[in-house]
Amino acid sequence: MSPHPAQTGAVNCAADPVSDARGVLDRCDELAAVSAIEHGIERVHLSPEHARVNEMAAAWMAEIGMRTWRDQAGNQWGRLEGREPGLPALVLGSHLDTVTDAGRYDGVLGVTSAIEVARRLAPRACELPFALEVVAFSDEEGTRFSTALMGSFAVAGNWHEDWWDRADRDGTTVREAAEAFGLDPARVHEAARRREELVGYLELHIEQGPHLEAADRPLAVVTSIAGARRFTGRVVGEARHAGGTPYPKRRDALVGASEVVLAVERLAVERGGIATVGRLQAFPGGVNVVPGLVEFSLDVRAEHDEDRDALVEAIRAYAEQFCAGRGLEFELSEVHNAAGVYCDAGLVESVTAAITATGDAEPLRIWSRAGHDAMAIAAIAPVAMIFVRCEDGISHAPGENVTPADVAAGLDAFEAAVLDLAARRS
Amino acid sequence: MSPHPAQTGAVNCAADPVSDARGVLDRCDELAAVSAIEHGIERVHLSPEHARVNEMAAAWMAEIGMRTWRDQAGNQWGRLEGREPGLPALVLGSHLDTVTDAGRYDGVLGVTSAIEVARRLAPRACELPFALEVVAFSDEEGTRFSTALMGSFAVAGNWHEDWWDRADRDGTTVREAAEAFGLDPARVHEAARRREELVGYLELHIEQGPHLEAADRPLAVVTSIAGARRFTGRVVGEARHAGGTPYPKRRDALVGASEVVLAVERLAVERGGIATVGRLQAFPGGVNVVPGLVEFSLDVRAEHDEDRDALVEAIRAYAEQFCAGRGLEFELSEVHNAAGVYCDAGLVESVTAAITATGDAEPLRIWSRAGHDAMAIAAIAPVAMIFVRCEDGISHAPGENVTPADVAAGLDAFEAAVLDLAARRS
Repeated sequence: MSPHPAQTGAVNCAADPVSDARGVLDRCDELAAVSAIEHGIERVHLSPEHARVNEMAAAWMAEIGMRTWRDQAGNQWGRLEGREPGLPALVLGSHLDTVTDAGRYDGVLGVTSAIEVARRLAPRACELPFALEVVAFSDEEGTRFSTALMGSFAVAGNWHEDWWDRADRDGTTVREAAEAFGLDPARVHEAARRREELVGYLELHIEQGPHLEAADRPLAVVTSIAGARRFTGRVVGEARHAGGTPYPKRRDALVGASEVVLAVERLAVERGGIATVGRLQAFPGGVNVVPGLVEFSLDVRAEHDEDRDALVEAIRAYAEQFCAGRGLEFELSEVHNAAGVYCDAGLVESVTAAITATGDAEPLRIWSRAGHDAMAIAAIAPVAMIFVRCEDGISHAPGENVTPADVAAGLDAFEAAVLDLAARRS
Repeated sequence: MSPHPAQTGAVNCAADPVSDARGVLDRCDELAAVSAIEHGIERVHLSPEHARVNEMAAAWMAEIGMRTWRDQAGNQWGRLEGREPGLPALVLGSHLDTVTDAGRYDGVLGVTSAIEVARRLAPRACELPFALEVVAFSDEEGTRFSTALMGSFAVAGNWHEDWWDRADRDGTTVREAAEAFGLDPARVHEAARRREELVGYLELHIEQGPHLEAADRPLAVVTSIAGARRFTGRVVGEARHAGGTPYPKRRDALVGASEVVLAVERLAVERGGIATVGRLQAFPGGVNVVPGLVEFSLDVRAEHDEDRDALVEAIRAYAEQFCAGRGLEFELSEVHNAAGVYCDAGLVESVTAAITATGDAEPLRIWSRAGHDAMAIAAIAPVAMIFVRCEDGISHAPGENVTPADVAAGLDAFEAAVLDLAARRS
């Protein structure tokens, strides 16, 4: 039925792929305008901004004939039936939530591209051996409640009951926020999809790293997604007068925490992993008081989970020893632990063929240092991802940038991957 | 007229000095109950709690026949005339404002002790060659408006006009707070005292350090008061995705700031000064974002101003070099600069003689690492201080503690110093 990917160039010969890409980027700009902060972008889980971008995505999906719905975890869906109603679905998507002071493309480009691919394929959906769905996940970043992937975990049937009582900075719990958003916490399990409903999950995402730029390629196929572990750390010392307390009497929590921050970087570099202290604050915070407490966050990743876990233990061991030597207590509590995920071999093959069809004879294969909704969905469906080059590898910052030409190549590859998969299943 | 300090033991032979000390400590407890926070002590400049403790101190002063008034900077005063009305005054005092989560004695013990000494001397004030005044300064700590010594600077005629627009955490300016307190900002200069009105200023204070405890002595005479310099520092890097940004691409502001925190301690220890980073926070503060900005405070002290200034420059030079090597910007802006002050030789002699009279043949002489109202008053009058041993050197924390026996010795020495000075001037 569907043409082989090698022929997809012909399918779109009437369209201008860069013009399609510009349309996708325009939608990213429209979404960027929906923000909780005046200068810059912030859209967090279950916020009014989240509701607004869900509505915008739903309208775009409806425009191309998709049936749309919002599930009980706040994810926005659209569906085009395949050659017969009720077939298992191939899901294309990403997320619409952001970090604070975000860029325009992380997650957002994946959702708008998925809608564009659905638009291109809509006229031929009735020939496809699967339904085509688009999803805009509700919480990938974990910005608001400090736990990531809540939306996609719910879809995978892995909702954690103890998430309901997690509070944001203002003390609002997930339960309260969900109710204010119009969701019924008792029905969150209705968001879960069954394995037999799904053919697979394909996600396009900016690389969020500099490897494509270094290799001078627009696209890469993702082979695996590193699982992050995240911790809340505390160094406890004693608050004392900054003038009157000589050094031998000090138990300065900030000196301990500073040594830990440097050790986190040093140990990660030595072991080829990635570890970051992103949040840190000293208390009580008086200009003339030796800090008695420091609270911080720790995020640890590596290509293989066992290397990542060994890095965590190396950091813990060093920090405990250093802090003990200064009369400080060191505590590390795990708040997030995502197992690393290998992409599905069959889907990786379809994506590779699709990128090859865009003119790149030997597509770059890279592992994702960043987490993605695909990690959660891997529990119930085969997953794969396409990375699009981004400028200077910048992400999670206003400087995120992509070129229309790269996005055009990404859209073509994304569409071709769907058609390749359709051809294999026909 | 007055007996020589060697004879003061006899003067008080009828009284029980430890019982007097218990009365003083009871008053410290009464003042500790006046707090803006439920658990712990916080009384800031121009707050309702400040008004309340001023009234309590005024009542205690009035009880012993002092004429009392609150000046236009919020300081509370009391005065006993000497052998004729209108004589220049010897001022005894300290402050009633506190840091957040403070102890019971910093400042407070100096005020309650001054009132107790005035009580003891009141019957004989008409023999003294000077008037006796007690002052409770309004703002020594600078907790509310981040600038210290506002009350005593006003008394010294060194009010800064730009202080009026400084705002507290809630955006209330000094001007607004002063008006709400019942002061008239246009009349702040009336708080200034003229040199010729003052004989000198004597302050009793807890040591806020461990030197007396280490030397097993209850009291010390202060030879000089170190002047602190305070800075707001910033390390500026670039916020980036924590997973996607490899180490060579990172400009992690928190790694830079952590190295600075460790260098601040190392350089201070090497040079025999004291430098502290009390406040530090990383921004934007996302668990999965490399910090792009760190803001922190820096407090630097040394016995001699030139050593302190050299330490500041050593810290700045090291930090600039380290940060530049990592593509980070380092900025240090001065927010406070108090010149160190030497205590008056004559008053130091009186205090030394007075401590000797308590039975300590060779009183310990120490320099104050902490700032005090005496630093501001030194601009218009000779100053000296008595330090009282405090437990484990703890200050600016709930664990502040003193013993009744040490306070009793302090009261005797404080009284004897006044009488010694009276004898020298008669």
